[in-house]
Amino acid sequence: MRMAELSAGSGVPVATVKYYLREGLLPPGERTSPNQARYSAAHVQRLRLIKALTEVGGLPLASVGAVLAAVDGDETPHETMGVVQQELAGAPPKVSDEAAAWASGLLHDLARRHGWKWHEPENRTVGNLVAALATAKELGHEKLAERLDEYFELAVRVAELDVEVVTGLTSFDKIIEAGLVATVLGDRIFTGLRHLAQEHVSRDVLRRAPGR
Amino acid sequence: MRMAELSAGSGVPVATVKYYLREGLLPPGERTSPNQARYSAAHVQRLRLIKALTEVGGLPLASVGAVLAAVDGDETPHETMGVVQQELAGAPPKVSDEAAAWASGLLHDLARRHGWKWHEPENRTVGNLVAALATAKELGHEKLAERLDEYFELAVRVAELDVEVVTGLTSFDKIIEAGLVATVLGDRIFTGLRHLAQEHVSRDVLRRAPGR
Repeated sequence: MRMAELSAGSGVPVATVKYYLREGLLPPGERTSPNQARYSAAHVQRLRLIKALTEVGGLPLASVGAVLAAVDGDETPHETMGVVQQELAGAPPKVSDEAAAWASGLLHDLARRHGWKWHEPENRTVGNLVAALATAKELGHEKLAERLDEYFELAVRVAELDVEVVTGLTSFDKIIEAGLVATVLGDRIFTGLRHLAQEHVSRDVLRRAPGR
Repeated sequence: MRMAELSAGSGVPVATVKYYLREGLLPPGERTSPNQARYSAAHVQRLRLIKALTEVGGLPLASVGAVLAAVDGDETPHETMGVVQQELAGAPPKVSDEAAAWASGLLHDLARRHGWKWHEPENRTVGNLVAALATAKELGHEKLAERLDEYFELAVRVAELDVEVVTGLTSFDKIIEAGLVATVLGDRIFTGLRHLAQEHVSRDVLRRAPGR
């Protein structure tokens, strides 16, 4: 298909498509003349993916580039998903050393009890978790952390479901893309369901809560 | 305490504290002379909360202002948390009408099966959920949506835990603040745990996945 059809099919304006081509986010089409190129269904899908990552996932374009480079690289599926996750996580915010040490201790205990290992301090997922837990402590809301084991057990069940959804697919490229979609959209979907459920579950409880 | 101590105690620079005072994010201190004011522990806590919302929660300052206005307002706890959630959710991204109708239908069926109700279309939580599900469909990853009931049941269990954590507190202000903390930090914490669990659960499965 031509550029105009590529734009219409993906819902991405022509100027934006050209920008993605220049930035290398979208691979070039097949040249048919000095001024024209032919694009395929894979180009439409790639544009939809970029749109999902930026508009729904809220990722900055630099992160989208890094994520797509990992997807296009030749690591194993497990390594690729690891790189993708680190890019999605972003750099952890600064917290006080004391609170960070406390949060880090909590996570180490949790990991030890479950026989898990991870590599620190490069692991941004761990870094962000430590920062969030440390911030809760600094605010005097350690109760969230006291129930960490229960949250963790539910998170494992969600992850098992995620992995089932993704690995039901049969080609490598589909698995990596589905992993990416499951991570970015899956986070938004689960968080949305959780908020709806909070609203419902808390309705009666909060009505009985102490007034001002 | 004086401004210098307020800054040291909260880890927020003096210039930023002054900016928050001008913007009304932080209530004024008690004037002790034309050039000086006295601040309390409540000011330190409010600054820590602003820091948590911006640095860990990633909220823009305008949303922080709206969230804090809701917290300081005089609605019931349930109404306050509703306003807070809508502010945190942000405006949903645009998706195609067709995919949105499909996603909306899925959520309506889900709600009907569980006897739940919500107000549309003002509800941004629903709007964002519809957008995320619609985007998954547009990318050809409807499998995520096929397991929606299972995700939903786990989300309800997480929400029950959230509400237990929050309502264990005895004062209205603490409940609202804890609700806010549980929503912003709780989302980050659960998502982090889910990513760690995905990494662990997928390790063996992805190693057996088809190669390129």
